[in-house]
Amino acid sequence: MGLIVSRIFKRRSKKAGLPPGSLVYVGDKKAYETEVGIIDYDVDNFVEKTVKTIEECLPFKDKPTVTWINVKGLETGFVDEIGRCFELHPLLLEDILNTDQRPKLDEFEKYLFFVVRILQYDEKEDEVRAEQISFVLGRNYVISFQETDGDIFDPLRERIRNGKGLIRKMGADYLAYAIIDAVVDGYFIVLEKMGDRIEDIEDELVLNPTTETLQLIHFLKRQMIVLRKSVWPIREVINRLDKVGSGLIEKTTTIYLRDVYDHTIQVIDAIETYRDLLSGMLDIYLSSISNRMNEIMKVLTIIGTIFIPLTFIAGVYGMNFRYMPELGLAWSYPAILLLMLMMGISMVFYFRGKKWL
Amino acid sequence: MGLIVSRIFKRRSKKAGLPPGSLVYVGDKKAYETEVGIIDYDVDNFVEKTVKTIEECLPFKDKPTVTWINVKGLETGFVDEIGRCFELHPLLLEDILNTDQRPKLDEFEKYLFFVVRILQYDEKEDEVRAEQISFVLGRNYVISFQETDGDIFDPLRERIRNGKGLIRKMGADYLAYAIIDAVVDGYFIVLEKMGDRIEDIEDELVLNPTTETLQLIHFLKRQMIVLRKSVWPIREVINRLDKVGSGLIEKTTTIYLRDVYDHTIQVIDAIETYRDLLSGMLDIYLSSISNRMNEIMKVLTIIGTIFIPLTFIAGVYGMNFRYMPELGLAWSYPAILLLMLMMGISMVFYFRGKKWL
Amino acid sequence: MGLIVSRIFKRRSKKAGLPPGSLVYVGDKKAYETEVGIIDYDVDNFVEKTVKTIEECLPFKDKPTVTWINVKGLETGFVDEIGRCFELHPLLLEDILNTDQRPKLDEFEKYLFFVVRILQYDEKEDEVRAEQISFVLGRNYVISFQETDGDIFDPLRERIRNGKGLIRKMGADYLAYAIIDAVVDGYFIVLEKMGDRIEDIEDELVLNPTTETLQLIHFLKRQMIVLRKSVWPIREVINRLDKVGSGLIEKTTTIYLRDVYDHTIQVIDAIETYRDLLSGMLDIYLSSISNRMNEIMKVLTIIGTIFIPLTFIAGVYGMNFRYMPELGLAWSYPAILLLMLMMGISMVFYFRGKKWL
Amino acid sequence: MGLIVSRIFKRRSKKAGLPPGSLVYVGDKKAYETEVGIIDYDVDNFVEKTVKTIEECLPFKDKPTVTWINVKGLETGFVDEIGRCFELHPLLLEDILNTDQRPKLDEFEKYLFFVVRILQYDEKEDEVRAEQISFVLGRNYVISFQETDGDIFDPLRERIRNGKGLIRKMGADYLAYAIIDAVVDGYFIVLEKMGDRIEDIEDELVLNPTTETLQLIHFLKRQMIVLRKSVWPIREVINRLDKVGSGLIEKTTTIYLRDVYDHTIQVIDAIETYRDLLSGMLDIYLSSISNRMNEIMKVLTIIGTIFIPLTFIAGVYGMNFRYMPELGLAWSYPAILLLMLMMGISMVFYFRGKKWL
Amino acid sequence: MGLIVSRIFKRRSKKAGLPPGSLVYVGDKKAYETEVGIIDYDVDNFVEKTVKTIEECLPFKDKPTVTWINVKGLETGFVDEIGRCFELHPLLLEDILNTDQRPKLDEFEKYLFFVVRILQYDEKEDEVRAEQISFVLGRNYVISFQETDGDIFDPLRERIRNGKGLIRKMGADYLAYAIIDAVVDGYFIVLEKMGDRIEDIEDELVLNPTTETLQLIHFLKRQMIVLRKSVWPIREVINRLDKVGSGLIEKTTTIYLRDVYDHTIQVIDAIETYRDLLSGMLDIYLSSISNRMNEIMKVLTIIGTIFIPLTFIAGVYGMNFRYMPELGLAWSYPAILLLMLMMGISMVFYFRGKKWL
Repeated sequence: MGLIVSRIFKRRSKKAGLPPGSLVYVGDKKAYETEVGIIDYDVDNFVEKTVKTIEECLPFKDKPTVTWINVKGLETGFVDEIGRCFELHPLLLEDILNTDQRPKLDEFEKYLFFVVRILQYDEKEDEVRAEQISFVLGRNYVISFQETDGDIFDPLRERIRNGKGLIRKMGADYLAYAIIDAVVDGYFIVLEKMGDRIEDIEDELVLNPTTETLQLIHFLKRQMIVLRKSVWPIREVINRLDKVGSGLIEKTTTIYLRDVYDHTIQVIDAIETYRDLLSGMLDIYLSSISNRMNEIMKVLTIIGTIFIPLTFIAGVYGMNFRYMPELGLAWSYPAILLLMLMMGISMVFYFRGKKWL
Repeated sequence: MGLIVSRIFKRRSKKAGLPPGSLVYVGDKKAYETEVGIIDYDVDNFVEKTVKTIEECLPFKDKPTVTWINVKGLETGFVDEIGRCFELHPLLLEDILNTDQRPKLDEFEKYLFFVVRILQYDEKEDEVRAEQISFVLGRNYVISFQETDGDIFDPLRERIRNGKGLIRKMGADYLAYAIIDAVVDGYFIVLEKMGDRIEDIEDELVLNPTTETLQLIHFLKRQMIVLRKSVWPIREVINRLDKVGSGLIEKTTTIYLRDVYDHTIQVIDAIETYRDLLSGMLDIYLSSISNRMNEIMKVLTIIGTIFIPLTFIAGVYGMNFRYMPELGLAWSYPAILLLMLMMGISMVFYFRGKKWL
Repeated sequence: MGLIVSRIFKRRSKKAGLPPGSLVYVGDKKAYETEVGIIDYDVDNFVEKTVKTIEECLPFKDKPTVTWINVKGLETGFVDEIGRCFELHPLLLEDILNTDQRPKLDEFEKYLFFVVRILQYDEKEDEVRAEQISFVLGRNYVISFQETDGDIFDPLRERIRNGKGLIRKMGADYLAYAIIDAVVDGYFIVLEKMGDRIEDIEDELVLNPTTETLQLIHFLKRQMIVLRKSVWPIREVINRLDKVGSGLIEKTTTIYLRDVYDHTIQVIDAIETYRDLLSGMLDIYLSSISNRMNEIMKVLTIIGTIFIPLTFIAGVYGMNFRYMPELGLAWSYPAILLLMLMMGISMVFYFRGKKWL
Repeated sequence: MGLIVSRIFKRRSKKAGLPPGSLVYVGDKKAYETEVGIIDYDVDNFVEKTVKTIEECLPFKDKPTVTWINVKGLETGFVDEIGRCFELHPLLLEDILNTDQRPKLDEFEKYLFFVVRILQYDEKEDEVRAEQISFVLGRNYVISFQETDGDIFDPLRERIRNGKGLIRKMGADYLAYAIIDAVVDGYFIVLEKMGDRIEDIEDELVLNPTTETLQLIHFLKRQMIVLRKSVWPIREVINRLDKVGSGLIEKTTTIYLRDVYDHTIQVIDAIETYRDLLSGMLDIYLSSISNRMNEIMKVLTIIGTIFIPLTFIAGVYGMNFRYMPELGLAWSYPAILLLMLMMGISMVFYFRGKKWL
Repeated sequence: MGLIVSRIFKRRSKKAGLPPGSLVYVGDKKAYETEVGIIDYDVDNFVEKTVKTIEECLPFKDKPTVTWINVKGLETGFVDEIGRCFELHPLLLEDILNTDQRPKLDEFEKYLFFVVRILQYDEKEDEVRAEQISFVLGRNYVISFQETDGDIFDPLRERIRNGKGLIRKMGADYLAYAIIDAVVDGYFIVLEKMGDRIEDIEDELVLNPTTETLQLIHFLKRQMIVLRKSVWPIREVINRLDKVGSGLIEKTTTIYLRDVYDHTIQVIDAIETYRDLLSGMLDIYLSSISNRMNEIMKVLTIIGTIFIPLTFIAGVYGMNFRYMPELGLAWSYPAILLLMLMMGISMVFYFRGKKWL
């Protein structure tokens, strides 16, 4: 985990000293070969195709239909070219390539620029993986940029293809909403996995807590921090969308944005709850260690307290003084044994009284 | 409890990928058969009946009297149909069926949509059960949706039937207030139960703290989190009602809303107090474990410190050296015993001085 | 204390299900027989009398002089009647009888309604007792409601009788201020007592901390929570008075309200300081327990470490092997004793080096 | 320290029940004989004298030059008289005499009233001493009130005398600023002393932590609370000065106020940093106690684990059975000794492996 | 570290009592010889030279080209002279020389004054070093002041020389932005180093935690506090730049400022994350100490519990009573040995059952 955090900031230092707007891909994944998918639709029409060059995108730029240009794989040259074609601000292009942005909304005169983070639970690595997706919402187009070939938008594409739901009847703003909605929906799946993990620990905590349990608790706490940092800013993003005056967001879409806002709040609520749960678990873990110590000490104390005095008595009669009258008496050995037995028994009762046994 | 939390989010993933507004019942209770109760009243008239189809509701839609349509059991088809009849927004219908909403108020042009949570203390399971109730407040109707056949509204219905209090003289907004008021009143009952539980623990904590006590403290702390998450947003809901410009809320009702707002604050205050109490209990628990450890160690130390030196002396005179002059003296055995006795007694006084005895 | 908290909320459940505005006395004290004291004054006139019926109050209602009607003992019927005579809102009357209100200010068209809490330190029970006092400020009257016959207003009455200070020259708003001022002044006395208690603990903590000390710390912490909940909302009350547009509060009185506001802040500051102090004490308590444990362990360790090896040596020469050449030598017994002595001494020096002795 | 806190509130109870505006000196220092120093100046003129009666102040009241009347020693009668001469509000006079005010700014029609706290580090008592200084800023005069003869304003007076800096060219508002500036400058000196103390503890903490170290940490933490309570409200005071509409503060002075505001923030920052440092020290202290315990236990365990089994073996061959064949063999004694040696050595290696040695 | 904090405030006390605007160099580095570098440019022209006297700067003052005057080494006389030439406010000059300012933005009529802090990780001292850089942004000039000859602006100068990026086409406001950007870029490098250190600790924590680990954790926590105090106010600075009405900041530059604002937020986010990580590490450290204690105690308990009873038995048969029938039997020695063996083995199984072995 330490790895994850420091990795994020290591990328950055490559860029220190470069002029702002310099396009350098800052990411830890080998950039995939760029692949551009175009979906163009309105209520009646639907075109879908994969292109290789930006020239093929240009015809869609000014069409009144809604166009979704999805760029997979972040190649510096390609992003630069798209930027020029669609007149995108250099800082915006820089942000697309710096894949460690905080989720945000930047307003430009003719378009809005969104950065959000897709979260996915990587079963193999057993950790939450975050990927940046940035997109530009123009009058009638959305251009989205992904690092890898994520599949969370497949159901959305399917809905556009089939004309299921409202999407074909609405504009590019609704498409932007639908993208955010798909991202936030993904958070619920990650939260479920986290919930499962927490449940597992809970059982472990009661049955057999180990140092690994502790490390797991802290690991999950840190994952919660990562989650929180991805989700919290989205709340602000949507909040600010209400106040955007560019006319890019229609009134009818606002209600849908409010809905995704509610979902975001739910996710944040859940993260808070999980954090509280994990803190509680930490307390239980620490107190169960203390309890164990108590038990260990109790055993030693009971054994010690019973046998140390008895051993002393045996020691006394093991002394070699010539004049020890008791030693010569026939009944003194059984008497001493009886005394020892009684001492031991009374100790046991004493511990019973203290509830140690 | 881990179960409760993760259950809430598991429901959600069924819906990932579906278009917004898709009606899927998301809940863990088998949906009851839908049952619709209608109460229609004004100062002079009162009609109450149970209907099976939506068609029977329609006549009440535009009547000037106040109509309360209460839907028990959330059936997808039924909710969909009602939505169409009363022109409700699809996202609203979706929220009705997703029974894990955060309490909220959504403003639409012609109606307000409320989601609140009924809390009940389940004696058998010994936990707080939350149920979602959502309702739509229109010009002269309230449509409420419940998962199960909760009984907390029976006194309210009785008041309408008898014309007790103001309710028959007021409009639909007052009915909405009365519903929220009944929900918040229910919180006080849950809080009482919690208070009883906390008192029980308090006694236990002093008399005989066990690991179960600790788990109970954490369990109650988590219940407090659940409560808090249900109550806190209601505060905002009522606060925002003041600023709603739709003319659906009359001035005279505002005073009543302020009253229920005060109650909400009281509930939140109580929850905070309980949380503080439980945190204090945690400290006491942990320190009482430490105290025990101290006591255990004290016993071992006292026994050890008294007898280990004595055993050493006995050991010395148990050595088999040929030339040990003391051994031959007649008075040396009683002298040694006396010495040992005095050592033991002085140890006891030493411990008295340290207040260990 | 658990008792105190749960008691507050138990009262409430009697009322669940009743229509709003239902007058039920919610309090744990047997209501005293109602006793109504009237003080009527202006610069030149002063009338004081005790009445039994509400009819006797009515003549004062519209007199231009300032009238203070003080109702002691909350009888449902009586409160109801007063409400009707002075046209008070039913919810307001309900709040008067529910003696577990949070301090607040409610604005009505013709009067303001205040709820504050009198705090008194009960020497016998050794706890802070809270009593609700609510009062209505009208154009030229103040009606105050108390549960028991509190005496904190006696100096105020005396000032009115003697015409000491400004009070006879000012209106009803100044009287309302004077009541709040008297209540807040009472908080300082409670705080002093608390300060004394904290000082006592502080000494105890250093000299001889016991589990009782811990429980006392937590008890005081909880008392601080109770105090805070009584005082904090008064701050808001006074703050809002500034913005009340009803013309009931004169400009000249505002300066006095600011003064009592400053006092409230001082009380809150003191409570925060005490809480910090108590938290610090908790740390000291816990660490002093740890220190004790260390001391106990040190004693055992020193004794054990010195004597266990010596006992072993004694044990060796207590073995019964036939061929142990040392046993036959004349100087070996004193030599062994010397060895043991030296081992013991070197151990003592070792512990000195470690600063354990 | 408990003393300090409770002392503050003890003073107060003398006043409970008195009418507002009653002048009672509330302070723990025997009031010094009142001494009034007057400095009157403008660019060209400078008069300085010490007066005994208020009559001597009056001529300065309406002079166009800036007059600084500094009252040392708070005598009830004197303050009352000054109040009457300068038409000061009775509540203001009360605040001057109650020397436990929170720093604040009160706006009156013709003047502003400031309360701030001078902090000085008392080397002898080894604690921070706070003294209240209150002053009234009128059109062309400043009247300041001090309990004792503090010397922190001497450099300021010197600057006025010499005409060094801007002060002689500016109005009374700049004088007020200069007073606040001197007070805030004093905080830096206190902070330095605190920093030195914290450094000392830091060394102690590493070398030899004792219970005194802990108490010192808590003592400093509490001093930080006291500091914070003195400094924090000054921030608000200066902030509000910007919005004061009385025309008493000139535009040119505002820049200087902003400067002292920056200093206040620096002080607050430093206090926060110190608090964080002290919290960290607390953690280190507690963990160093745990470490010690571990070390103590390790010693006991090592000694016990090595010698207890050996003592057992010695005990076995000390048994008096008639038929113990080993006892008769010539080489068995050295063999047993060797065995014991080897057992001891292997134990030492075992502990080495566990890094306990 | 205590050193660092107290050093900051020690500097200050030199100045207590001096009139505001007194120029005294407050810093702990021996002031370097002052060296002034001038860069003057517009799109077409570029002049760079090093000057010794202020007279040489003056010609650039009113030129329409952008002039960057960089002053290295803070000499009181020199700063004073520059102040007079460029009509800078005395308080501003004071702030330049007090090199312990909080980052801030001060607005003056004709120029803006910035204070920020350069952070650099000192590999040798292994700590974060902070240096103050202050600069004045006028209509077409920037005057920057540095204590030492920092090199972080070299890439920026290079960019101006080469005309790389936008900088030669933009005004002085863009130069100011570029300076802030370079400073913030430097924070990322420091954060990386910190990340590396935290990773190192993380490994150490699992493998072999020592007291040094603890001190390192606290050291890093404190470094985070220092960082936070440098970065946080920059956020406010940039935020306020938006609202500056002086016309010094062009619209086009605002977008760049937003970008650097985003970076600041990222840095703050990272600091928060690191703090959380370090807190978690503290918990792990403390619990790993507890675990060790448990292990130590377990070893002692196991050894003690097995051998103490056996030693007692040996002691019994070492007693010298004349009549102990067992002693004379031929098989009793082996029988007792067998008994002891069985007792030991059963103990081992008992501990296995408790999972202690």
